[in-house]
Amino acid sequence: MDRSDELVVGVMGGLGPEATHDFFGKVLAHSNARTDQQHLHLIIDNNPKTPNRNDAIAGVGPSPGPALATMAQRLEEAGADFIVMACNTAHAYEKDIRRAISKPFVSLIDEVVAEVRRSHSEVRRVGLLAAQGCIDSQIYHKAFRSAGIEVVTPDPPSQSELMKLIYRIKSGERDDSVRSSMRALAERLSQSGVGVLIAGCTEVPLVLTSQSCTLPLVDSTDVLARRCVSYARRTEPLPAGV
Amino acid sequence: MDRSDELVVGVMGGLGPEATHDFFGKVLAHSNARTDQQHLHLIIDNNPKTPNRNDAIAGVGPSPGPALATMAQRLEEAGADFIVMACNTAHAYEKDIRRAISKPFVSLIDEVVAEVRRSHSEVRRVGLLAAQGCIDSQIYHKAFRSAGIEVVTPDPPSQSELMKLIYRIKSGERDDSVRSSMRALAERLSQSGVGVLIAGCTEVPLVLTSQSCTLPLVDSTDVLARRCVSYARRTEPLPAGV
Repeated sequence: MDRSDELVVGVMGGLGPEATHDFFGKVLAHSNARTDQQHLHLIIDNNPKTPNRNDAIAGVGPSPGPALATMAQRLEEAGADFIVMACNTAHAYEKDIRRAISKPFVSLIDEVVAEVRRSHSEVRRVGLLAAQGCIDSQIYHKAFRSAGIEVVTPDPPSQSELMKLIYRIKSGERDDSVRSSMRALAERLSQSGVGVLIAGCTEVPLVLTSQSCTLPLVDSTDVLARRCVSYARRTEPLPAGV
Repeated sequence: MDRSDELVVGVMGGLGPEATHDFFGKVLAHSNARTDQQHLHLIIDNNPKTPNRNDAIAGVGPSPGPALATMAQRLEEAGADFIVMACNTAHAYEKDIRRAISKPFVSLIDEVVAEVRRSHSEVRRVGLLAAQGCIDSQIYHKAFRSAGIEVVTPDPPSQSELMKLIYRIKSGERDDSVRSSMRALAERLSQSGVGVLIAGCTEVPLVLTSQSCTLPLVDSTDVLARRCVSYARRTEPLPAGV
């Protein structure tokens, strides 16, 4: 197969780094390559120095917008043909990113909504496991609403517990205690009349897999990885208007 | 801890991609970070389209030198303060890389030799598990010779088997059959009067760990990952003359 016309993928990462590593691994897995050369060319900027997204959205920290815009620009200059970001919450700054570049930016949020419509077309309510900033900025709520789908989030005590779990994962914890707490949280959300669960924070799939959920789990990291392979190999065109 | 003076690491990768992913994971593990922001800023160019190093050294394929030089240049332009390459064999093209950049290039080969001198100072003979191009270009032989250390490689049939295993790993195989063959190969080399084994190809540690070897195993990927953390955090100065 001639792969010389493949697109180079720019990956905005480090938000956090373990999630970026997970994304990289999922791209490799979905590439089904038999030689080095059959793999995708990815340029990954793992910049964990980017200001905390949740703090910024809560109004208690500096905006990561300028750092994200610079990251996207540098990836474009380094040769990326399109750009993705392995973090859900940071999509609250999508406009800053798009303004900074001329190459397409593929939205993880839009890809997750498209995946739900494609693979779970009967579903009208989804359960969202996401960071507080992702919920407060309503990025998933707006995107799902446009598709006629309602978003259900954990009740406030559960959401607060979810945030603690996300920071524990970021601190390097992935043991059984974190896994079982996340599983219990996912199970409670599953009881709220939703058809699928969305792992809408790239830290979540580090401790929660579809095997441990009773409802189907849409892993945002995995969705983006699979779409990157399709777009880079041009087996599917990049989404219109990106 | 103020990390604002940390160095940005440029990673030449994709040689192969799974080895780059392994290197990334080892940097994360050695960073002992408790928050995103405590992790290192890495820019990883995972460019698996780089021509095959072993074919080039054997005289049956184009040189990867120009592609490697371009990769290093782009990493420098993207903001890397020093550059490393997560591949042993490609260090045969180290001069092409150094000529292309003004920022330091930290040699994986030199770091492995330094690690043997530091942690196994009594050892005068090492067993080298490396790709054919790495052996033919004598990069480890020369570097160890300067340190008064002799390099022993597998006998020709074993070396030929090792190359087949390396290509099987590159094709995505990591099952018990590959692992046990690699372990047997490492065990035979251990019987040749050497004091340590060198996993001198970044594909090797994907299927061989120190737990499965009777002799100490120096994992080149792990050595480079640990050194990157020290150099980026300036807990140790970059090696002189790089």
